[in-house]
Amino acid sequence: MKAVVLFSGGLDSTVILAKAIAEGKQCLALAFDYGQRHRVELEAAAKIANHYQIPLRVISITPQVFGNSALVSDEKISQNRSPEEIASEGVPTTYVPARNTLFLAYALGHAEMMGAEEIHFGCNQMDLNAYPDCSPEFISAFQGVMNVATKQAVEGNPPKLVCPLIDMEKTEIVNLGKQLNVPIEMTHSCYDPTPAGTACGVCDACILREKAMNYS
Amino acid sequence: MKAVVLFSGGLDSTVILAKAIAEGKQCLALAFDYGQRHRVELEAAAKIANHYQIPLRVISITPQVFGNSALVSDEKISQNRSPEEIASEGVPTTYVPARNTLFLAYALGHAEMMGAEEIHFGCNQMDLNAYPDCSPEFISAFQGVMNVATKQAVEGNPPKLVCPLIDMEKTEIVNLGKQLNVPIEMTHSCYDPTPAGTACGVCDACILREKAMNYS
Repeated sequence: MKAVVLFSGGLDSTVILAKAIAEGKQCLALAFDYGQRHRVELEAAAKIANHYQIPLRVISITPQVFGNSALVSDEKISQNRSPEEIASEGVPTTYVPARNTLFLAYALGHAEMMGAEEIHFGCNQMDLNAYPDCSPEFISAFQGVMNVATKQAVEGNPPKLVCPLIDMEKTEIVNLGKQLNVPIEMTHSCYDPTPAGTACGVCDACILREKAMNYS
Repeated sequence: MKAVVLFSGGLDSTVILAKAIAEGKQCLALAFDYGQRHRVELEAAAKIANHYQIPLRVISITPQVFGNSALVSDEKISQNRSPEEIASEGVPTTYVPARNTLFLAYALGHAEMMGAEEIHFGCNQMDLNAYPDCSPEFISAFQGVMNVATKQAVEGNPPKLVCPLIDMEKTEIVNLGKQLNVPIEMTHSCYDPTPAGTACGVCDACILREKAMNYS
C-alpha cells in the first residue's frame, strides 16, 4: 500500500512516518518550505528520510501566503506558557492561515499521481485545542473533499485521510516513538531556534516536547 | 465586502471578476503560475487586472506537483472534439490532479489574511461534466472545509464559496460578459497556444469558446 505522509521533521510526523513504514507501507514524505522561522526542521526532515531510506519531496510555498503568522514573521512567539495554558488559551500566534488545508491539498495531488491509497497527517490531542485545522471536524471535512475532488475519487478509489495520533497526548506519542525505535534525537520541534538550530526552550513546542520527554 | 477571485485571465474567470466588481466588491484576483502550456494566460490576467485597476497576485506552484497532466507536459491535448464529445467523454487529458483544491486552499489563506467574506470561483456547466473538482459536490465539500478550517471560521465568520456561473452554459457566460462590458478580446482561452500566444483553434477550450462566440 502507498501512502503520502505530511512530514515536517518534527516529533509527531516522524512517529507517524515510522509507524507507516513499520506497517509495510510505501511512503512518500512531503515537507514544506514556507519561510518558517524553524526552517532548520527541513534539515532534520532530510536526515530522517535518509535514515529510513524513503523519498522526501520539499514543496516551496511563498511566505507571503501566510501573512503575519508568528511562524513566518517577526511577531513575538508565546513564551513559557504552561501546557495547561497552551491547551486553554485558544488559537495561538503560531497559527498559520489555512496551512493544513494547503498542505493536504498538495498531498492529495501527490496521492493521485502516485496512486496512493492513504494520506497520513500527524495532528494530535494537543493541536486540536489550539489549531482549527487539526480538529476532528476539519479532518472529516477534508475527507469529504477527498471523496469527490479527484479522478481517483470519481473512479471509486478516493484516498483515506489517516490521523494515527488524533487521540494521543504528547507523552503517548513519545512512548509510541520509543516503541518504534524512532531516532527522536534527530527530530526538531522548536518554533524559534537559533540559526544554528538550538532550541529556545520557552516556545509552546519546546514546553510540550520537554514535558512529554520527562513523563514518557 | 471583500472577495478573493480565482482568476486565470480566461473568459469565465474574467466574467466573474467583472460581476464581483460591478456588485461593488473589493476584489483580490489570485492567479497561478504552475508551468501551464498556456502560461500566456497570465499576461492576459495582468492586462485585465490593470484594466479594472484591481490587485493581482500570482502564486507560483512547481509543475512537478501536477505530474503528467497534458496541461503541464508534452502529452497530447485532445483536438477537434465537438462540444457534445467534450461533455460526454469523461475526465480529459487536461485534467490536473487536485488543482482546484489547491487553488481554493490558497484562496482560503488569502481570504483569512484580508478578512474577505467571499471566495469566487468560475466553474460552470461545461466544466462539471469533465472535471471532478468543478462539480456541485466538490463545491459543497470545499465549503464544508471552509466552515471549520480557519480562525475566521472558528470565530463564526467562515468565508462563502461563490460560484456565479455554476448553472451557466458557455453561451450564457459570453452574454453575461457582454452585458458587463467585459473586454473579451483581452481574455485568453486556448490550452495550447503558440509561444506568441496565438490560439490553436482545435483544443477543447478553443472549440467551446468559438461555439459560444458564434451563438451569443
